[in-house]
Amino acid sequence: MHTREACVAADRLDPLASIKNQFDLPPGVIYLDGNSLGVLPRTAAARAADVIGKEWGAGLIRSWNTAGWFDLPARLGDKLAGLIGAGKGEVVITDTTSLNIFKALAAALRIQQQARPGRRVILSERDNFPTDLYMIQGMIDLLQQGYEMRLIDDELPLEQALDDSVAVVLLSHVNYRSGQMHDMRAVTALAHERGALTIWDLAHAAGAVPVDLQGAKADFAVGCTYKYLNGGPGAPAFIWVAPRHTDNFWQPLTGWWGHQRPFDMTVAYEPAGGIRRYLCGTQPIVSLSLVECGLDIAHAAGIDEVRKKSLALGDLFIALVEERCAGHPLTLATPREHALRGSHVSFRHPNGFEVMQALIARGVIGDYREPEVLRFGLTPLYLGHADVWDAVEVLKDVLDTRAWDKPEFKHRAAVT
Amino acid sequence: MHTREACVAADRLDPLASIKNQFDLPPGVIYLDGNSLGVLPRTAAARAADVIGKEWGAGLIRSWNTAGWFDLPARLGDKLAGLIGAGKGEVVITDTTSLNIFKALAAALRIQQQARPGRRVILSERDNFPTDLYMIQGMIDLLQQGYEMRLIDDELPLEQALDDSVAVVLLSHVNYRSGQMHDMRAVTALAHERGALTIWDLAHAAGAVPVDLQGAKADFAVGCTYKYLNGGPGAPAFIWVAPRHTDNFWQPLTGWWGHQRPFDMTVAYEPAGGIRRYLCGTQPIVSLSLVECGLDIAHAAGIDEVRKKSLALGDLFIALVEERCAGHPLTLATPREHALRGSHVSFRHPNGFEVMQALIARGVIGDYREPEVLRFGLTPLYLGHADVWDAVEVLKDVLDTRAWDKPEFKHRAAVT
Repeated sequence: MHTREACVAADRLDPLASIKNQFDLPPGVIYLDGNSLGVLPRTAAARAADVIGKEWGAGLIRSWNTAGWFDLPARLGDKLAGLIGAGKGEVVITDTTSLNIFKALAAALRIQQQARPGRRVILSERDNFPTDLYMIQGMIDLLQQGYEMRLIDDELPLEQALDDSVAVVLLSHVNYRSGQMHDMRAVTALAHERGALTIWDLAHAAGAVPVDLQGAKADFAVGCTYKYLNGGPGAPAFIWVAPRHTDNFWQPLTGWWGHQRPFDMTVAYEPAGGIRRYLCGTQPIVSLSLVECGLDIAHAAGIDEVRKKSLALGDLFIALVEERCAGHPLTLATPREHALRGSHVSFRHPNGFEVMQALIARGVIGDYREPEVLRFGLTPLYLGHADVWDAVEVLKDVLDTRAWDKPEFKHRAAVT
Repeated sequence: MHTREACVAADRLDPLASIKNQFDLPPGVIYLDGNSLGVLPRTAAARAADVIGKEWGAGLIRSWNTAGWFDLPARLGDKLAGLIGAGKGEVVITDTTSLNIFKALAAALRIQQQARPGRRVILSERDNFPTDLYMIQGMIDLLQQGYEMRLIDDELPLEQALDDSVAVVLLSHVNYRSGQMHDMRAVTALAHERGALTIWDLAHAAGAVPVDLQGAKADFAVGCTYKYLNGGPGAPAFIWVAPRHTDNFWQPLTGWWGHQRPFDMTVAYEPAGGIRRYLCGTQPIVSLSLVECGLDIAHAAGIDEVRKKSLALGDLFIALVEERCAGHPLTLATPREHALRGSHVSFRHPNGFEVMQALIARGVIGDYREPEVLRFGLTPLYLGHADVWDAVEVLKDVLDTRAWDKPEFKHRAAVT
């Protein structure tokens, strides 16, 4: 398929090709950053106008009931459930991924405090997304109970790190930088064998790869809706708890939305039964409502078709970069093997930051992550094979002409 | 002023009368629930369309920089600051009130752990909004360090409860049910004299009454933007920390947005200097952006004019209810004295729930809070004296005709 014509032909046979029309994409852009911020569903503008004009403006306070605002976290959670191998009533969409990590970690530690007291290690990965590691550190510092964070890396593999001092394992299913994917089922089984509970961060997995939380016997999962699920900038995140754990403990962010009868206005906190106890405060209804637009498209596409195309686009991208950009100092940072790969592909380049700025200036939008990593999200819902071809041609030209070597591409803004 | 004509005349002289045109209000409704959910600013729909279409749709990931998304919590916090007696760089708009209570409480307890170790009491008020009490309970249970909650009430007044075991005092400036207002300056001074730190919940105060956090020498404050500030349903909340405390400790919800250099992707958490350390995860940008529409109107009106009219409307409402509805079992639950009153007025009625449902059915929208409390928010930005007159006439008719005594008004939905 290493001609543009072959790519165009592949797009013609693509069962997902028409899904692209469900998004508003800016002209002149090849968007390879859906792993950071997903694109705009066509239905979102009208949905927002409706929520703002009719539900807020006309319905006012009545909309908590009549527009179903109060049930929105659970109703949208049910809609997400099928994409991650969860059941109805097991997921809520609420707060942020960071906060949901805090809830899951607190609950998991408390369950272990009862079941296996004395375990004081929270295991994660050196290369995990920093907020996961930061939330662990905040929790350890807060509790002052002698917990410590242990990080797996090349020197300390999981098998060795996972000893009987480990209470909880917190891993990202798909790594934010390399795109490497853990075998959720195998890792969970190993953790359980060693007496640890698992928390899976699905930020780069939900909507991108098939996830089977129940099948993997996972314990907790969190993730975000604004990447592959196209829920909108900073849209509320989600949390899933295995039903066998849900009612064992609540979680310490005990706001009134997690109360069994929030409008009784009682003095004593009493956690709601089920996943609602993972709610805390009043949710941002406009942003939350828009999550549904992206979820509907994900369901229409089907996660298996998405995965199939994602792998095809990833294979194509890797092959084309290695073929067309040969001779440039690019190193693949993502596993080639399908079972080990999510839906983005990363290459290292010594001038990665500048190269990415030059690409963005030409309308090929990926992103850059320290150190040296160029990330390219390959999102099957709105990218085709010819888009991949065209993006690599721009990359080739940027490298061949050293177009990246200009002062304006060296400036680092707050967010890159 | 106890004729409708006098009310209409008063409205003609009202310097805030024209502000009402800055909101989209549904026809046929007298909205007395701005203390629960504020109304829709006329600019909000266009702002949302812009954020969704241009910033998200066209700008995509670039908008974190080009549209200023990353700075939004701090920029809007600066805009709010002037309304609550805070300085620039001291407020962020982020997360929920409940979560911001958690952050403030954790930080205050840690500061006290250093300054006055051994203090184990968190003092609040039995009649405080439940989420405040629930967050305290969640924190106590999480820490397992022997903290306890003590509640002031009629039997245990503040003066007596505030002994040298109290670490932190968490109070609502204006009570959610009765509308009673604490003297922030006096209570803070007393707390400091006894060695306690103060956290003020401004949910029912911000935008409703003049607040002077710096003048009162308060320590921490949190509050919401979707009531008197008209930020939209569930819009993100705010947190203020006195500059003398900000860099003493961070807070335990240590997400990447609170990191000094979030995009360095370092393993170790390092809190940002200043109020940004009170951020945690990625914020819901659409909902957050809309907060600005309400803030702009609040600034245009001016909090002193708002307060003056709020008290006038409150006086009028109380006088009219007592005069026009005399003979019905209504008991004023709000202090008459101006210095002790916020911007809503509550009456108890043995059939309060049904009475409120009957009022809402006739377009007079207040709300009901257990037990027996009818709440009427008197929001000067979009209510006039004649509205108050008309609302009381409907109340009078509902009571005189026992219109509330119907089966359909007894049903209690999830949110009331």
